[in-house]
Amino acid sequence: MMNVLAPDVYAKNCPSRMVLDRISNKWSMLILNRLQEETVRFNQLRREIDGISQKVLSQSLKQLERDGLVRREAFPTVPVTVEYSITDLGQTLAETVHLLTHWAEKNFDAVLQAQQRYDASGG
Amino acid sequence: MMNVLAPDVYAKNCPSRMVLDRISNKWSMLILNRLQEETVRFNQLRREIDGISQKVLSQSLKQLERDGLVRREAFPTVPVTVEYSITDLGQTLAETVHLLTHWAEKNFDAVLQAQQRYDASGG
Repeated sequence: MMNVLAPDVYAKNCPSRMVLDRISNKWSMLILNRLQEETVRFNQLRREIDGISQKVLSQSLKQLERDGLVRREAFPTVPVTVEYSITDLGQTLAETVHLLTHWAEKNFDAVLQAQQRYDASGG
Repeated sequence: MMNVLAPDVYAKNCPSRMVLDRISNKWSMLILNRLQEETVRFNQLRREIDGISQKVLSQSLKQLERDGLVRREAFPTVPVTVEYSITDLGQTLAETVHLLTHWAEKNFDAVLQAQQRYDASGG
């Protein structure tokens, strides 16, 4: 019996699962991680998040804006300047995301070593 | 100039980016989240993580085992019993992942409301 008051990421139809699905994506995480530091222009994000395409960056930002995590501001310069900043809601998520990117930076070597041991043992 | 001593998730060829890519996946996160609580059998995981297919669960567990995050143990019962538990390395990650799944459960409503506002404003 499902308690409709208790969100549950293990349940595929719970909206919290949809939200988990949206945020568990490396591009979204890298964008949130970067915007947590400061407001950044589109082209700067594209340069700094190495490997992201213009299309994927554009789509990711649009989704993050729709989710209420990122704010988009356009200035009537020539050409138009577009800046992205983090919202209060996004800030609460970005703090957690930062722990995850920090974990990756701190533990990648342990993961690589485990992979080598696994492969050497024939899987 | 790249400092080879400093891992950087923003750099596409840094191993920490590969690790971030591996872990930023809802299925991996749900598995780690569940195994943080206790050792669980394959079929129990499949039932509890609603919506995961046998194939995806099997592949995800194999990758997590290769990454050194999950331990697999088979018992010579008939039929064979296979149990999965979290490793010490996986435990450090699972603590962070748990913050993320908790964020999704706590904030899904704010995200849904933001989406409705965005859609109502015509994007």
